[in-house]
Amino acid sequence: MKGGFTLPGEAGYEKLTLQMAEKWGADVIRDSDGTTLSQEILDAGYGIYSTVCVIRDHNDWVGKHPDMQQQTFLMSDPKMADHDQLAIRPLEGYFEEQFRINDSEESLVWWQVFDRTADREVPGESWSYDKEKRTLFITNAIPWHIYTVNFLAYRIWEEISMYNHTTNHWDKEHLMQIDPRYPQVQEYLLKWMENWCEAHPATTVVRFTSMFYNFVWIWGQDERRRNRFTDWGSYDFTVSPAALREFEQNHGYRITSEDFINKGRLHVTHMPPDEKKKDWMDFVNDFVVEFGSRLVDVVHRYGKQAYVFYDDSWVGVEPYHKRFSQFRFDGIIKAVFSGYEVRLSAGVPVQTHEIRLHPYLFPTGLGGEEQFIGNGDPTRKAKEFWTNVRRALLREPVERIGLGGYLHLTEPYPDFCDYIGQVVDEFRRIRSYHQAGRPYCLKPRVAVLHSWGSLRPWTLSGHFHETFMHDLIHVNESLSGLPFEVSFLNFDDVRGGALKNVDVVINAGYAGSAWSGGDAWKDEKLLEQVFQWVYEGGAVIGIGEPSAVEGYADYFRLAPVLGVDMDTGAKVCHGKWQFEITPVPGLLPGGCGISPRPKRYLTDPDTKVLMAFGEEPVLAAHAFGKGKGIYLASYEITPENTRLLQNLILYAAGQEWNQPYLTDNPQTECTYFPDSHVLAVINNSPAAQNTRIATRDGNVELRLAGFESRYLEI
Amino acid sequence: MKGGFTLPGEAGYEKLTLQMAEKWGADVIRDSDGTTLSQEILDAGYGIYSTVCVIRDHNDWVGKHPDMQQQTFLMSDPKMADHDQLAIRPLEGYFEEQFRINDSEESLVWWQVFDRTADREVPGESWSYDKEKRTLFITNAIPWHIYTVNFLAYRIWEEISMYNHTTNHWDKEHLMQIDPRYPQVQEYLLKWMENWCEAHPATTVVRFTSMFYNFVWIWGQDERRRNRFTDWGSYDFTVSPAALREFEQNHGYRITSEDFINKGRLHVTHMPPDEKKKDWMDFVNDFVVEFGSRLVDVVHRYGKQAYVFYDDSWVGVEPYHKRFSQFRFDGIIKAVFSGYEVRLSAGVPVQTHEIRLHPYLFPTGLGGEEQFIGNGDPTRKAKEFWTNVRRALLREPVERIGLGGYLHLTEPYPDFCDYIGQVVDEFRRIRSYHQAGRPYCLKPRVAVLHSWGSLRPWTLSGHFHETFMHDLIHVNESLSGLPFEVSFLNFDDVRGGALKNVDVVINAGYAGSAWSGGDAWKDEKLLEQVFQWVYEGGAVIGIGEPSAVEGYADYFRLAPVLGVDMDTGAKVCHGKWQFEITPVPGLLPGGCGISPRPKRYLTDPDTKVLMAFGEEPVLAAHAFGKGKGIYLASYEITPENTRLLQNLILYAAGQEWNQPYLTDNPQTECTYFPDSHVLAVINNSPAAQNTRIATRDGNVELRLAGFESRYLEI
Repeated sequence: MKGGFTLPGEAGYEKLTLQMAEKWGADVIRDSDGTTLSQEILDAGYGIYSTVCVIRDHNDWVGKHPDMQQQTFLMSDPKMADHDQLAIRPLEGYFEEQFRINDSEESLVWWQVFDRTADREVPGESWSYDKEKRTLFITNAIPWHIYTVNFLAYRIWEEISMYNHTTNHWDKEHLMQIDPRYPQVQEYLLKWMENWCEAHPATTVVRFTSMFYNFVWIWGQDERRRNRFTDWGSYDFTVSPAALREFEQNHGYRITSEDFINKGRLHVTHMPPDEKKKDWMDFVNDFVVEFGSRLVDVVHRYGKQAYVFYDDSWVGVEPYHKRFSQFRFDGIIKAVFSGYEVRLSAGVPVQTHEIRLHPYLFPTGLGGEEQFIGNGDPTRKAKEFWTNVRRALLREPVERIGLGGYLHLTEPYPDFCDYIGQVVDEFRRIRSYHQAGRPYCLKPRVAVLHSWGSLRPWTLSGHFHETFMHDLIHVNESLSGLPFEVSFLNFDDVRGGALKNVDVVINAGYAGSAWSGGDAWKDEKLLEQVFQWVYEGGAVIGIGEPSAVEGYADYFRLAPVLGVDMDTGAKVCHGKWQFEITPVPGLLPGGCGISPRPKRYLTDPDTKVLMAFGEEPVLAAHAFGKGKGIYLASYEITPENTRLLQNLILYAAGQEWNQPYLTDNPQTECTYFPDSHVLAVINNSPAAQNTRIATRDGNVELRLAGFESRYLEI
Repeated sequence: MKGGFTLPGEAGYEKLTLQMAEKWGADVIRDSDGTTLSQEILDAGYGIYSTVCVIRDHNDWVGKHPDMQQQTFLMSDPKMADHDQLAIRPLEGYFEEQFRINDSEESLVWWQVFDRTADREVPGESWSYDKEKRTLFITNAIPWHIYTVNFLAYRIWEEISMYNHTTNHWDKEHLMQIDPRYPQVQEYLLKWMENWCEAHPATTVVRFTSMFYNFVWIWGQDERRRNRFTDWGSYDFTVSPAALREFEQNHGYRITSEDFINKGRLHVTHMPPDEKKKDWMDFVNDFVVEFGSRLVDVVHRYGKQAYVFYDDSWVGVEPYHKRFSQFRFDGIIKAVFSGYEVRLSAGVPVQTHEIRLHPYLFPTGLGGEEQFIGNGDPTRKAKEFWTNVRRALLREPVERIGLGGYLHLTEPYPDFCDYIGQVVDEFRRIRSYHQAGRPYCLKPRVAVLHSWGSLRPWTLSGHFHETFMHDLIHVNESLSGLPFEVSFLNFDDVRGGALKNVDVVINAGYAGSAWSGGDAWKDEKLLEQVFQWVYEGGAVIGIGEPSAVEGYADYFRLAPVLGVDMDTGAKVCHGKWQFEITPVPGLLPGGCGISPRPKRYLTDPDTKVLMAFGEEPVLAAHAFGKGKGIYLASYEITPENTRLLQNLILYAAGQEWNQPYLTDNPQTECTYFPDSHVLAVINNSPAAQNTRIATRDGNVELRLAGFESRYLEI
């Protein structure tokens, strides 16, 4: 079997390129950031992917139209008045190479000045901006109050290029980025796209990286805080006076700078979006789809396919929004470190899904560690990444995999080249089983309930190593390889009756977060739906501070279901129910462990405590009508905890957790493809493992080497 | 020297009583709970204390006036409706021997029923109470909503007697308690007090235990949650229909059951009181003082003195309220485990302060451990308690000390008897130095800022072992023996300009607590006062979540001063200032340690981090104008941390922390009495210690045995 694999080619290494294409069974060759494909490669009979980033690489044009660069709202650093006059230099503290104040007349109308001590806006007549001095002057300041300025700034260095430039100490021209919100830019880009297609006849697939707006990445001048703000899911980089005016016309109300700045917090993806943020996202998504589809049309007109990269400047693309199909993309490509990213890619409604594996063919890894140089062990890294990815690929198919970077770096690592060959073969094997029919799933249908629901399934806002501090990413990563049907619901879905298609709901996060739900839990109608559904047989797994919101008798609004609540301090004088551990034989796999979080207590003496830390419950189960609540103080992914989660889902749904087609060793997992009569058994650990699987055709016992996969016909 | 010591006498052990009175130099003999004094003791020429608890021990009278027993509001346990009718038995879950529902007509008007899911009161027409069935019926219930009932209950077992009875498995009549709010009870008690005085001619001091209302202690029926609620400082046990009506007349508004119940939380002392709670406290205090002083008058009329016990049913007494002097008490007595309790006693404006030392002469200790039996080591315990107490006694004088319990238990412990002899002598020595003049203090005047301020100084709401989970009790205990002038301020004091008399302010507690301040920090006027004061040279030490309140740009409202803030989740995407540890030589004593609390970050790159945990600051200092902010993530008392606190106070105030009249070994402390020319040096540790003290007359170096005190004339 060949195909389904995208190889990064490299001009100057034509022989190697074609040799590795052969070895790995590639059907497509791509360029990468920093590499090109020579004519010899283009002519070798492979499909050709070319990466394009439409909003940068137009510095000549930008030089003539500097006011059409992209912008953002920023908030000046807080400054205290010590008398009734105060001068603020808005940009102080921000990276001067990234931002330039937009002090045009059309910009200044959006500026706002706030007294943050009083939480009050300063009226326009009390401040003025001096363009020469780049300073804002406040009169009638209240001594000892802190003031900030919300202002508009151009982003004068495209962020990905800024990152690569700065990290690699490049000495090149800064790439700027243009905002397609302006009709002149649109006209320019459509023409540019045509020219590009003309100039690249060999390209079969145009890979957009991605559309127009980068994830939010705000840098500081001081290297001790170079990274001031990073959010892969937020929309702050989409503003401009033009967009703001258009929004007002479309939505009938004016959005303000403070609606973005939000006391300096911005609206991080980890917090529930308010209605204005949702409106703005919808407004931008509508535009990105509309204009993006016109670029895709150009590509199609030239007989090429259009794929979109699901990273970098993906803001506004929203592959899970119903509008996404209007782009008419032929494929989506995502760089994956983790299983949940496989599921995130696989679920996008598009014909071709491609995942780009790690390690990227770069000398050093993400953390700067040696990878394809010195003491680097790229094979080991490839095995670890593949182990994350494999279990998710067994649950949900994608059509293609690929690599990226400098191919020539692999030459001194023949074991790496051999291992990738195995991986590609295994991928094609798994793909063939999926083509024959879906893998066997256990009955409970699991839903993760959070503020973003199905618009933002699986991911929180970025990669695992960026969001590891949230319980939910650990849960999602565990779920990505478990034999359950998983969906993502928001609170409107639940109000609309979505629970009827679900058996177990998971709500995991800290109070006020998008993952826990925040103020959504103030809605009594929501609670009625959940309570009735559990009472009649549903189950809730609550992790961390599920459904927590201040102002009610219970802090966890689901406390009646969970049988556990948390004391925020007002109940420090209240006696708590004493308990003993209730063992449930076999439910907790050896080696599993849940870290305690303080001040949890039982609300019901009948809550069964399965794990405790001192006098506080850590893992508990509670009957509620015919249904059940399960509470975990925290969740961190390990093989044993993944198995614990699987068991708890089955236990919550009232089912036996020792079932056929499950391994008895949490270091191993299996997937049964009934249509292919194949049992895939994987070892997720670096050590050899024995494992046993009960099947309807008898027990299977086997020993797997570290990281090994085995595909048994049964 | 003799005197200043109160001995617990015991009938049947007359010889022992008089012998120990002689040995320990007692001038007063007292009875205790469970002991009496025989005529021989009464006639021996000593002053005689007699304990009276005026509200109990009247069972015959109560039998005829059951409706004049004390009451409380209770909230029924939450119950969920699964259709439109719901029946609730209000008292279910409460200890049936402690409570009886008051379902009289005058009681029922105060009952309220709440839909806790919707956080909405259920109108009166939708519920009715069936007295026969002791059940409340709700009609028009919303399925899946949770309901509770606020109701009035008589407290039919005086709580201290209930505790002793239950703990010691007594089989005696339950003592009931009467409410002096009723004129008939007042009339009865005044007469009873007269009779009592007539019947006790030998008594020189009547010790009231205490006045009328016990601290709040609500028990549950189920032994797994016998203690449902304990708060030494709350006023829930002072309600009755009569009092509620009177309050409405006095204050012009009606207080409701929900004002007490507060969603089931009640108003724990650890949370800031709202205006209604403050009004109610004032109303009750006014009454307790008014009627209490009439009882004191009776005592005085009989030529006896009246002392009040500052524990048990002390609610409404408020020894730090300006009304307290109207009682005309001659003395106050407090049981002390800790140094802060010495300071709490010593600060009450009354002629005689007596502290009752531990261990209490009981077979077992507080935790049920052997004390004067079996393997008990009462001498060791006495040394430990005295070590806590001694350092505070060196800072602030009291006039008397005493013991309580069964004297005969000391007979088998001659070393205990000898040690107490030493303690009493040492106490009298310290007292004599105080009489000659105040001890030397360092310059910085320290103020602890919290919601209760000077009304509730030193204590949080009970003993150390009951409040150890709060940072502030550790701070107060450290301060109790440090050479600083310490005051307690509330937020009104600060608004009124109280900071002008202070050099260092401490604010320590978790968000929303009375100790941190909660919503008080929403007031911009308060912040102006604090910011200006620090800017001009003041200093703030913030511990835990100081000044934390939601809704502003900073979570710690003092962040501009402290240079540190805490991320509640909305800033998880914000880059934080990187830092390195800034050493300040000699500031941190060896062995000190501050436990981290998560999500603290620097708000200013100029904040000096003195201790860190990973990438988060644990102890930091920040210059603000001429003043300073110091932040500690937590605080736990140890000898080294007490020294750290002392150093930080001096550092914050811009002073040298190596000064004369301080020891160089944190295990030891010293107090200089300039008028007596005496340097008191104490060893707070069980091990021998070397220590050196610089004085204006040269260095003193000495070695102290474990727990030793040395008094040097210099």
